[in-house]
Formats: sequence, C-alpha cells, structure tokens
Amino acid sequence: MTYCVGLKLNDGLVFMSDTRTNAGLDNFSVTKKMFTWSVPGERAITIMTAGNLATTQALVSVLEERSKAPSDRNPTILEQPTMFQVARLVGSTLKEVIAESGGDGQDASSAFRASVILGGQIKGGAPTLFLIYPEGNFIEVTDDAPFFQIGETKYGKPILVRAYDPDMSFDDAIRLLLVSFDSTIKANLSVGLPIDFHTYKLDSFEASEQSRIEVDDPYFLSISEGWGEALRAALGHLPRFRSK
Amino acid sequence: MTYCVGLKLNDGLVFMSDTRTNAGLDNFSVTKKMFTWSVPGERAITIMTAGNLATTQALVSVLEERSKAPSDRNPTILEQPTMFQVARLVGSTLKEVIAESGGDGQDASSAFRASVILGGQIKGGAPTLFLIYPEGNFIEVTDDAPFFQIGETKYGKPILVRAYDPDMSFDDAIRLLLVSFDSTIKANLSVGLPIDFHTYKLDSFEASEQSRIEVDDPYFLSISEGWGEALRAALGHLPRFRSK
Repeated sequence: MTYCVGLKLNDGLVFMSDTRTNAGLDNFSVTKKMFTWSVPGERAITIMTAGNLATTQALVSVLEERSKAPSDRNPTILEQPTMFQVARLVGSTLKEVIAESGGDGQDASSAFRASVILGGQIKGGAPTLFLIYPEGNFIEVTDDAPFFQIGETKYGKPILVRAYDPDMSFDDAIRLLLVSFDSTIKANLSVGLPIDFHTYKLDSFEASEQSRIEVDDPYFLSISEGWGEALRAALGHLPRFRSK
Repeated sequence: MTYCVGLKLNDGLVFMSDTRTNAGLDNFSVTKKMFTWSVPGERAITIMTAGNLATTQALVSVLEERSKAPSDRNPTILEQPTMFQVARLVGSTLKEVIAESGGDGQDASSAFRASVILGGQIKGGAPTLFLIYPEGNFIEVTDDAPFFQIGETKYGKPILVRAYDPDMSFDDAIRLLLVSFDSTIKANLSVGLPIDFHTYKLDSFEASEQSRIEVDDPYFLSISEGWGEALRAALGHLPRFRSK
C-alpha cells in the first residue's frame, strides 16, 4: 500500500510519505512518492501519490512533460493561475493515465487506480491541500478537516484526530506525523521506512528541501521506542475503571 | 460493521463488543453481539460475532438448539470435552449457516459472511480464545498474539499493541479496551455505543454477569474526553524534532 499525509497548519503545510512499494509480499522496494515543483517567489507545489506505481509514475512524467525533448518542456502545472486549476489539471491527467491503462477512470479495474494529495501556494492565493480521486474529482482541505491521508489511513488516524492543532509548529507536526507513521508501519507490512517529508512555509513561495528519515534514523527510533512508554503512562493518567 | 475484542490475561479473559448493527447508513439499531453459556463449576463459554446479522443470529440460534422445543434443548456446545472441540463445533455451524444463505462458506458472497471470537475455559483445560473464520477454520490465541479483534479492527489496534500487558488487571484491561473502542467509534459510524463487556476469571468456571456501558455513561465520557488531553501530553514528552 502506502501512507501519505498532508497537514495544513497556520504556519503553512507539512507533507510526509513512506517509500515502500510492492507487488506481492515477495517483491518490494523503495520508491519516492513525493514530488515538488516551484517557481521561487511565485509558487511551490507538492504532490504525493498512492496506488498503482505505473499509474503514479506516468502521472508525474506527464505533468513534467517528459514526452517532449528536455529543452521544450514547460510543465503546465507551472502555468495554472490558481491551486484550484492545478488540482483540475492533476485530476484530469490522473484520470487519463488510468483510462489509458485499462478503461475509464470511474470503471477502471482497481489494479490501475491511484490517488493524490496535492498542496502548495500560488501568489495571490492561500496555501491549500487537495485530495484527488482516481475519477479525477477532488476535495479541498477545510478548518474542520485540516488534513488528508491516502493509502493505509486507519492505523495512524486516531492520533492525528486527537493531537492535531493548527497552531502547532512544523517541528511538533513532524513529531506527531512520525508517531502516526510508526503506528502504521508497525501494523501494515506494505508501509515502510524510509520516510520523506518536507514543509512549506506560509507565503514563502519556495519549496523547502525534502528530507528523508532512514531506516536506522536515531530520532525515529527514539520516537518509536518512546511512544509505547508514553502511551502506557497516558493510559495510567486516565481515571481508573472500577468494576462493580 | 462491528468492533469486538477478546483479550487473554494472566488473570483470565476479557470480552468487549459494540452493539451497532446497520443495513446502510440510514438503517441502524442496537443489537447484542456477545453470548455466554455456562455450566457453573465446569465450563464458561463466550462468543462475540461480527458480520451479517442474519448469519450471526442463526449461528447463535442453532448453537442454542432453538429448532427444538424448549424442553428438548441440550446445546451441544455444553457437551464438548474441550475448547478445541467447541471451536470446531462453532466453526462448522458457522460454515453451514453461511452455506444455507448462499453457497459454500469459502465461496459465499461476502454479504452472508461472519466471523466469531470464541473464548472460555472447560475443566481440565486452560482458558483460551479462538478467532473463527467464515470458512469454519480458526486460529488460537498465543503469548505472541494475545488478543483477537473482529470487525473494524484497524483504528483501535495501535493502542492495544502498545499498551497490552498480560499482567494487567481486569479493570486496567477494560480501561485500555475502552480507549481502543473510543478511537474506533470516533472514526467509523458503523461502530457505536452501548458497549457490552464481561470478564472471565481464571479457573472460576463461572460466567460473570455481562455489563453494558450506555451512551451517556459518565466513566466512558471521562475516558473519551481525557484521552485527547492525555495523548497530547504523551506526545509532549517525546523528544522534540529539530529541523536542520
């Protein structure tokens, strides 16, 4: 599967994705699922993908116009006037790619399906996130639903629902997301380290560098090991049940 | 859906189940999913069910021999010499019931499927738990995998994995399970209060009374409200992430 989360904070956006891809349990490898485009001072756009790897790679290739000679490429994603228009472009491209593989987006076998989290900011607009479905349609983040997950979303959701706060700092958000990823990785073999992440600072119109947390990252290990202890302590602070 | 958990502790067994059943989002009601049989001093057996309600009700009715006149009933579940034999009986009965509704257990449309957690103790044996599949086969609890979940298992699993301890008391286990249920109820509309639970004390050979936690139960509300705060505090105790 995959696990990706896009989070909207008052300070900007946070993106995190795992890197495991697999075809069966006996064939897995590491692949990047996070892609960023930017025009410094004008726009920064990130997408994260979940689903069929051929579909998601084709999506990114088409968005980057890799069918043209390198000198002729001028990705249309960099020419859309608003994030809403970028979402429409990514959605229609995704639907087309799925249709080429095996029928129409809506009817295509689940084998070719994929979904996307898109986020970023274009000068004149606010930073925002979209969740784009294989059918090409999409929903936008709101204050009531301030984050999107794709892939194996269930194990890591309760901690996000409980601990998310729009005022949190990027560093606190990354710590929260790593706990959410750790719970997911512990429960689903198709989600695995390394973990990629990056942050987009409000009104910076610049893509920060993407960072990668490797399998043996000492900070991640300290989170993973510390969380069991922290959870048991948290449980211990809840009122005790008294059986009658 | 449904959410049921059976937990094996050194002190005995704990069973907890939600009570929501639904056919579509616009048709839901409360139904019991936990059933207990006992011969005091000799055996106590509990099952919890998830899946098609007609299937699970038929299963319980057959196990209770409700096809016979009340005076002739002598549930065979009370005559099996071991828990393993009880599991075989429940498994084969489940498979038969599904087959009657629509084909063989293995091939039956998912519409008629159901699964079961069975637990208890029969004199001469240890207390144990089984997870019984719609195909009629089953797995038994081990020290490495000391609990079973059926229904919507994902949201509530991380806390169980992290905080379960075979030495915990019944009261602590119920508090832990309520947190797991609360996370699930918050995320899936097909799981809902009231919650039924009961405990089986090692070598008691007696079924304790089942208890029900109602929608407005003040203890459950204190857990549900306190858990968000407790989680945020637990996160705050983890080492901070420092972006480079």
